Amino acid sequence: MYKHMPMNREETKRVKLIIEYDGSNYHGFQVQKNAHTIQAELEKAIIRLTGEKVSLIAAGRTDAGVHALGQVVAFDTASRIPPERWKYALNSVLPFDIRVRESTYVDRDFHPRFHAQSKIYHYIIYRQEKGAVFYRRYAWVNTDPLDIEEMKRAAGYIIGTHDFRSFCSSGSPVKNFTRTVKRLEITDRFPFLLLKIEADGFLYNMVRIITGTLAEIGKGDYPAQAMKDILKARDRKRAGATAPPQGLYLIEVKY
Amino acid sequence: MYKHMPMNREETKRVKLIIEYDGSNYHGFQVQKNAHTIQAELEKAIIRLTGEKVSLIAAGRTDAGVHALGQVVAFDTASRIPPERWKYALNSVLPFDIRVRESTYVDRDFHPRFHAQSKIYHYIIYRQEKGAVFYRRYAWVNTDPLDIEEMKRAAGYIIGTHDFRSFCSSGSPVKNFTRTVKRLEITDRFPFLLLKIEADGFLYNMVRIITGTLAEIGKGDYPAQAMKDILKARDRKRAGATAPPQGLYLIEVKY
Repeated sequence: MYKHMPMNREETKRVKLIIEYDGSNYHGFQVQKNAHTIQAELEKAIIRLTGEKVSLIAAGRTDAGVHALGQVVAFDTASRIPPERWKYALNSVLPFDIRVRESTYVDRDFHPRFHAQSKIYHYIIYRQEKGAVFYRRYAWVNTDPLDIEEMKRAAGYIIGTHDFRSFCSSGSPVKNFTRTVKRLEITDRFPFLLLKIEADGFLYNMVRIITGTLAEIGKGDYPAQAMKDILKARDRKRAGATAPPQGLYLIEVKY
Repeated sequence: MYKHMPMNREETKRVKLIIEYDGSNYHGFQVQKNAHTIQAELEKAIIRLTGEKVSLIAAGRTDAGVHALGQVVAFDTASRIPPERWKYALNSVLPFDIRVRESTYVDRDFHPRFHAQSKIYHYIIYRQEKGAVFYRRYAWVNTDPLDIEEMKRAAGYIIGTHDFRSFCSSGSPVKNFTRTVKRLEITDRFPFLLLKIEADGFLYNMVRIITGTLAEIGKGDYPAQAMKDILKARDRKRAGATAPPQGLYLIEVKY
């Protein structure tokens, strides 16, 4: 057993995992004192397999209730488990709402967050009462009549390189609020409304605030063009409410 | 307050509700000692609104983990709540995973189960690993390669009037095992496989045993034609395994 043994960096390898999880029962990704988190479950599973106490790094620290289909995490190990076996070994000890989809060994300098070229998030709105009991954990149940075309026009202002301070929750430690949104697509598949957004990086709650603002525009609270002024204002108070976490999915991290 | 007061039948009205629920967190529909059930939640909500302790009757007593989009229940009340208000009043006190979709007053002889002409159940199979964390509660995650055409052929034998004893779990108190399956459709929408079944009545676990048997045929364990012999045998041991409850939905009750 290597339990809690200090590892010689020369002997370790870096493992990259692509994981999916249902965030419903967790207080988000990142380890917090006395809270049930995805990271804590993964680190517990690794201890069970190898005895190693690792520090796991993730591409995105998703909040409580947020889901993932393509979260990327990395950690170092001295164990001799073949790369593809990590997937099966971890899935045999992980809870059923966290699954490893892929496991590989990567370059020891690989960093899941710093090396990400872009990330893709999806946000799902469920637009009717019927069947809503099945989507409370997996979508934002919003039965307002929405003007989708107006929302698409507003989304157009978001695409590109901007200072997104208006779309960042307070308390964020970042200094640079400039991000590039490469894609923001709105797909109407009633009863679902699907938002797909790709950017080189995201500020804290950025997707949820953009979604909340778009929903208010869809509802007619203000016109699509207001999005331009909201961006320019660089003031969180000018944007709409933060959409709930249940509808948000980290879909893919590109390197 | 009318709490626990014996009701004069002449003064009461019968309420019919159409309800939907996520069965994940319940020990089925029917009240059981020390168990969290849909019926107990509904009766508790009615006591909270009117003080009346009612005996609720349902069209189908769904098992633990089974869901409903169109369950029908009825109960008698002496309260003066207008029919359409029952929906809003109950939804204001019910947990979020049980919702009333419609409320009406009906003839006092209306019986949700005895008067049902037919019921429609759907069963959902989720056929891939990717995204499976989101369907553990709402589908049967089954990644076996399935021969859908063979399953459709086997389904053909089920349609019609038969003695369905082979598709009834033991312990059922019924004496007459003859039922008429009006419709059994299999729709392939990868990653979903959807079974829609309509019958004048269902034996205990009938849909789940039919689904389990069809899945074994799809997997190639035995040919479609075996379904004929399984039916004829009138022996539960001849049919396939009972598919898990999570994939089953009571969709509609027709009167």
